[in-house]
Amino acid sequence: MVKTKTQTLKGFRDFLPEEMAVRQKVIDTLREVFESYGYSPLETPSLEYTETLLGKYGEEADKLVYAFKDKGKRDVGLIYDLTVPAAKVLALYSQKINLPFKRYQIQRIWRAEKPQKGRYREVLQCDIDSFGTASTLADAEIIAITYNCLKNLGFKKFSIRINSRQVLRDLMQNLGITQEKKQLSLFRTLDKLEKEKVDEVKKELKEKGLGQEKIKELFSLVKSAKPDESLQQLLNYLKKLGVDEKYYQFDPTLVRGLDYYTGPIFETYVEKPRIGSITGGGRYDKLVADLGGPNIPATGTTIGLDRICDVIKEKNLMPELSPTPTKVLVTLFSPEYSEKSMETANQLRRAKIKTELYLDPEVKLNKQLKYADRKGIAYVVILGPEEIKKKVVTLRDMKAKSQKQLPLSKAIEKLS
Amino acid sequence: MVKTKTQTLKGFRDFLPEEMAVRQKVIDTLREVFESYGYSPLETPSLEYTETLLGKYGEEADKLVYAFKDKGKRDVGLIYDLTVPAAKVLALYSQKINLPFKRYQIQRIWRAEKPQKGRYREVLQCDIDSFGTASTLADAEIIAITYNCLKNLGFKKFSIRINSRQVLRDLMQNLGITQEKKQLSLFRTLDKLEKEKVDEVKKELKEKGLGQEKIKELFSLVKSAKPDESLQQLLNYLKKLGVDEKYYQFDPTLVRGLDYYTGPIFETYVEKPRIGSITGGGRYDKLVADLGGPNIPATGTTIGLDRICDVIKEKNLMPELSPTPTKVLVTLFSPEYSEKSMETANQLRRAKIKTELYLDPEVKLNKQLKYADRKGIAYVVILGPEEIKKKVVTLRDMKAKSQKQLPLSKAIEKLS
Repeated sequence: MVKTKTQTLKGFRDFLPEEMAVRQKVIDTLREVFESYGYSPLETPSLEYTETLLGKYGEEADKLVYAFKDKGKRDVGLIYDLTVPAAKVLALYSQKINLPFKRYQIQRIWRAEKPQKGRYREVLQCDIDSFGTASTLADAEIIAITYNCLKNLGFKKFSIRINSRQVLRDLMQNLGITQEKKQLSLFRTLDKLEKEKVDEVKKELKEKGLGQEKIKELFSLVKSAKPDESLQQLLNYLKKLGVDEKYYQFDPTLVRGLDYYTGPIFETYVEKPRIGSITGGGRYDKLVADLGGPNIPATGTTIGLDRICDVIKEKNLMPELSPTPTKVLVTLFSPEYSEKSMETANQLRRAKIKTELYLDPEVKLNKQLKYADRKGIAYVVILGPEEIKKKVVTLRDMKAKSQKQLPLSKAIEKLS
Repeated sequence: MVKTKTQTLKGFRDFLPEEMAVRQKVIDTLREVFESYGYSPLETPSLEYTETLLGKYGEEADKLVYAFKDKGKRDVGLIYDLTVPAAKVLALYSQKINLPFKRYQIQRIWRAEKPQKGRYREVLQCDIDSFGTASTLADAEIIAITYNCLKNLGFKKFSIRINSRQVLRDLMQNLGITQEKKQLSLFRTLDKLEKEKVDEVKKELKEKGLGQEKIKELFSLVKSAKPDESLQQLLNYLKKLGVDEKYYQFDPTLVRGLDYYTGPIFETYVEKPRIGSITGGGRYDKLVADLGGPNIPATGTTIGLDRICDVIKEKNLMPELSPTPTKVLVTLFSPEYSEKSMETANQLRRAKIKTELYLDPEVKLNKQLKYADRKGIAYVVILGPEEIKKKVVTLRDMKAKSQKQLPLSKAIEKLS
């Protein structure tokens, strides 16, 4: 075999068990909320024809797609989000799928971005979308689910900003900019207000042909914009769906960078740590048709799992989480006395207690106890000649550093 | 936006909700078993430097790696299995990780194989491995976990075949073949016995320089081989770990195609459908060192989730599985009477009942009921002017095609 100098690619991450504990808890929580709203799971390939992926997000995003030629010389790319793949499924199987169709999807996506805090090249996205309904109630439900996810994850402060591409389009019309392509290009520039200095954004708007007066007018129009009738209805629905008013607001400066949005758009921010949006989505009524399917209206959001885990770690929102699934370690006293330990481990597992068996009978008991301690395992069972003779086990509480002999049935009771 | 002719790549698959129900149930079952043995979750990147991936599996497997140049002109590849990535983690973080280290990992891997039944280009692998223990008890535990996973998934007939690379190496020594590289090359050819005709394998052995006499001797040696002392100990451990003897056997014809194995090897087969092995693994004591880490012995297995789901579907092993997570659909009587439906959906969810709210108040009630029926939702709640006046809901049992009016609290009791 070939000896290798090994390293992990920049922008990619290894998740050791302690980080996984948070990650897994977040996934389980999100799934529970998604399913409580009747959303069904969906999975799609990680690789698609490049043609499927490009031309949906906008020029700059297209540059970030991991595209390459496969062994069959096909132009393929790693998926950039979960919205296009889900819309592809609706386009391909529209005969088979009952509309309205509500799905959740938890998968990795790839973006060749410059790695930095909160920005990775591979992330796990959790998306919910509903297809087949043009009603703003569908948009409102997406926001309600986002709210409940964050609440259930223990987030206390967050802000869901809501706007609509229609509001922004009306505003462009008022400014005399009517061409859709031109509007989208300006939206992409305005979207940078969150990350870049106002002067930079103004410079780019100028480069795109807007005079100084127009730019001034644009900024003043954005500031004074009001929700239109449809967006107002969405905001009314939110209350009825149980979303606390403190957590959302109309924000006419919200733009979203992707081209495919057509209606309401929404993003969630936390003030600390400053890592950009932790959720983001909107309505995209034309995407399924653009992918060759019938006209199917759609709305949904991404919940950025990696950033959410970063916030949870930084704010210590899950202090009680155990770093290991193991509840008890069954030690091996010596090669001669191992058999009883194996049987005991089987019995503990049958009683639904998560039980690790130490796997090397040659290792000294003392070292086995140290291993349990370092790994944060709460209890240890010891089974030597004395215990076997007396038909008991020694149960050691690793935190209290105390131990006592008791019948296995009593130990099971204590551990359950 | 660009209009696209859309299709899914050959060898890749979209999993619609009905298939996902099986898939998700299998993942949850496996995770539960893995954690009951104290295995911790781990996740690693989908992309690695090509250098990390190649030269570990064997020449033929190396050709199947999805390798390409990324935007920074780095040679990268999609992971081919979860063993090399996990060994990489041990090589990189050996200071941080407490040994022995037991981990499970559930991730997608990619192989540019010829697509056929049971063979896809993207599959979800579920791996368990334990690092840091040379004891055959570790190998036996891996097999015991495999056995329990399949049992818990409802498999009634399967056969775990067990052999050891040491047994095969001894046999090669007897044949006068001592060079490791030569041995590995012959192992790869012998491994094809499962898929190809004996004559084809004999032809390849001849091409690799074995005379007719040697080939005859090799086949006779393989047939008459016995477990060595270490493998015998492993087989004894299996009994103590509660594995039923009916489900495993020593099989000297088992080879496994990958180069990195050093000790015991194991695979699981089902007779029907004939789709190759559904689990496969073994001991690989040199891989962590080959990846630049310290000497850390290791053993583990892959559980092939995609093939397992294929078997479950073909043999209908999960007939009770609901195609939708939704327990009840709350309908919208009309735009004027929607508000009460929204509140009711909130209350049902608070009572932990998975509740879908119909999202378009303009759609006729009749069509909403048809939707519930087609989707396989068991119950529907109707809330019109009459129900609101009488402070009840109409709960419709979709299977029984019966309905009655009752207070919401009673409906919640019935649905819980």
